[in-house]
Amino acid sequence: MVRAPQDGSGAPLAIIAGGGQVPLHLARSLSDKNVPFVVVMLEGDADPALAEYEHIAVNTAELSRFKRYMLDRGVEKVTLVGTVKGRPDIGLFRPDWTTLRLIARIVRALGKGDDALLRAVVAMMEDGGLTVVGAHEIEPDLLAPAARLGKVSVPKSQQAAIEAGIVAANALGALDAGQAVVVLGTRVVALEGAEGTDAMLQRVADLRAIGRLGRRKGGVLVKLRKPGQDIRVDMPTIGRNTVAGAASAGLAGIAVHGENTLVMDRQTTIADADAAGLFLVGLDPHAVERTWTGEHTR
Amino acid sequence: MVRAPQDGSGAPLAIIAGGGQVPLHLARSLSDKNVPFVVVMLEGDADPALAEYEHIAVNTAELSRFKRYMLDRGVEKVTLVGTVKGRPDIGLFRPDWTTLRLIARIVRALGKGDDALLRAVVAMMEDGGLTVVGAHEIEPDLLAPAARLGKVSVPKSQQAAIEAGIVAANALGALDAGQAVVVLGTRVVALEGAEGTDAMLQRVADLRAIGRLGRRKGGVLVKLRKPGQDIRVDMPTIGRNTVAGAASAGLAGIAVHGENTLVMDRQTTIADADAAGLFLVGLDPHAVERTWTGEHTR
Repeated sequence: MVRAPQDGSGAPLAIIAGGGQVPLHLARSLSDKNVPFVVVMLEGDADPALAEYEHIAVNTAELSRFKRYMLDRGVEKVTLVGTVKGRPDIGLFRPDWTTLRLIARIVRALGKGDDALLRAVVAMMEDGGLTVVGAHEIEPDLLAPAARLGKVSVPKSQQAAIEAGIVAANALGALDAGQAVVVLGTRVVALEGAEGTDAMLQRVADLRAIGRLGRRKGGVLVKLRKPGQDIRVDMPTIGRNTVAGAASAGLAGIAVHGENTLVMDRQTTIADADAAGLFLVGLDPHAVERTWTGEHTR
Repeated sequence: MVRAPQDGSGAPLAIIAGGGQVPLHLARSLSDKNVPFVVVMLEGDADPALAEYEHIAVNTAELSRFKRYMLDRGVEKVTLVGTVKGRPDIGLFRPDWTTLRLIARIVRALGKGDDALLRAVVAMMEDGGLTVVGAHEIEPDLLAPAARLGKVSVPKSQQAAIEAGIVAANALGALDAGQAVVVLGTRVVALEGAEGTDAMLQRVADLRAIGRLGRRKGGVLVKLRKPGQDIRVDMPTIGRNTVAGAASAGLAGIAVHGENTLVMDRQTTIADADAAGLFLVGLDPHAVERTWTGEHTR
């Protein structure tokens, strides 16, 4: 199972794998192309199917094991993909690698949002001599374009919902609370917190089923990168689950941050959207970011 | 069951009653004091127990019935209390009372948030010659003070959560999406949309139970009046449900907009909070409103 470098570039890439489909998707793609890589599986989050590849399973907080494993294999580049549901267990932190300064940074970040935590992890990796790259730098075809993806165009009736969603998602992102909102008409009916996008869409489906959202049809899921978010980590991600959830919630479509969002299983995801009659559009990133009122405030 | 005016002031007050405990609470209190009133029960929302008082049950959109009923009884003042879960059924609008201008206003508001809808209803009432008053003007003891309500003080460890919650709830309110957020440390983990505060607290309890919120204990529910919200309608409300929900979610306490929040069943609610070890505090409204970046933007 040891995967020797095969492309002459030498050092393997490390995939720090959280939950969801992105890490496995990326691993399969790299494997198909014979790109050398190792997987750091975050316990409780990473898909067990990743154990098929060269891997180590670690608790998020076991910094010493990360480090030794990557040094032993000559890793120079790492990418962080997938969701981290749990929060690191502070009791497991081993200060043999990190300096006290770094531990202090992590502990501070633990009380903040995902973005703050991830920035601290990235800084720690970089202090350890590693280069952190975005999944889209390894697999450019993962990235949503700033254009319509499927066959369904955005109806005029949903334009105002998209505009309101951009404002709301940017406000939500500025709080470092989440990336996604659901808008009906111009009414923001759901905002993503720690529950994640899929659970939020299920909530909208439930509210609609019991008549809490009125009779207005349609509505839009808008998912954007947080203002000031490091594009290399925790990029907004959509896939087949997202399309299924949006369809269950009775939405008209999905609008994402063009050139700043990962689309998993692109072909099937687009086909699902087409089949469900949902539009799927990557928004012009300049238009999205024009409403940013400044950089991240914390 | 006809309730004749008994205090010499003549005209009865109309309680436009949505869901939740506030309308019944108010009706009982007025009845105890022999203040004349009638209840307009919004179908599907109002507590059936209100039928004990002089009432009419109407669909939110049946404006003509509202009007005639109130005119017949000489109503001059109305108060809108409780939550409106559904959205008015546009098909039921009867344009015999409202002008086209008013209908246009309602239809526009339907696509917006609760606040926009309620402002349109208030404008319509006022155009109809009625005076709209806040529930706290009728029952001043419903209003939370800007002070600690129970025995438990706010621990120093939760001050930062309250501060972050004020910022987040104000941002949420500026979107006209909701009034309440839950903050752990300084991480905003849940934001209230159409689901309401109780459902949001249940979500936090569920996320905590499955370990999605890490090991950090405590956390705060912050509930504020929306920036620019008409204080006479849809005031933030808490009660025994809120305390029970916050306790289930493992929170340390509840912070509300002092002098701008209704506290139902005040004595029992405070006793419940004390028994659960939760703090319950009304925040200084000047401190809350200092972070408003301007009036409501829509």
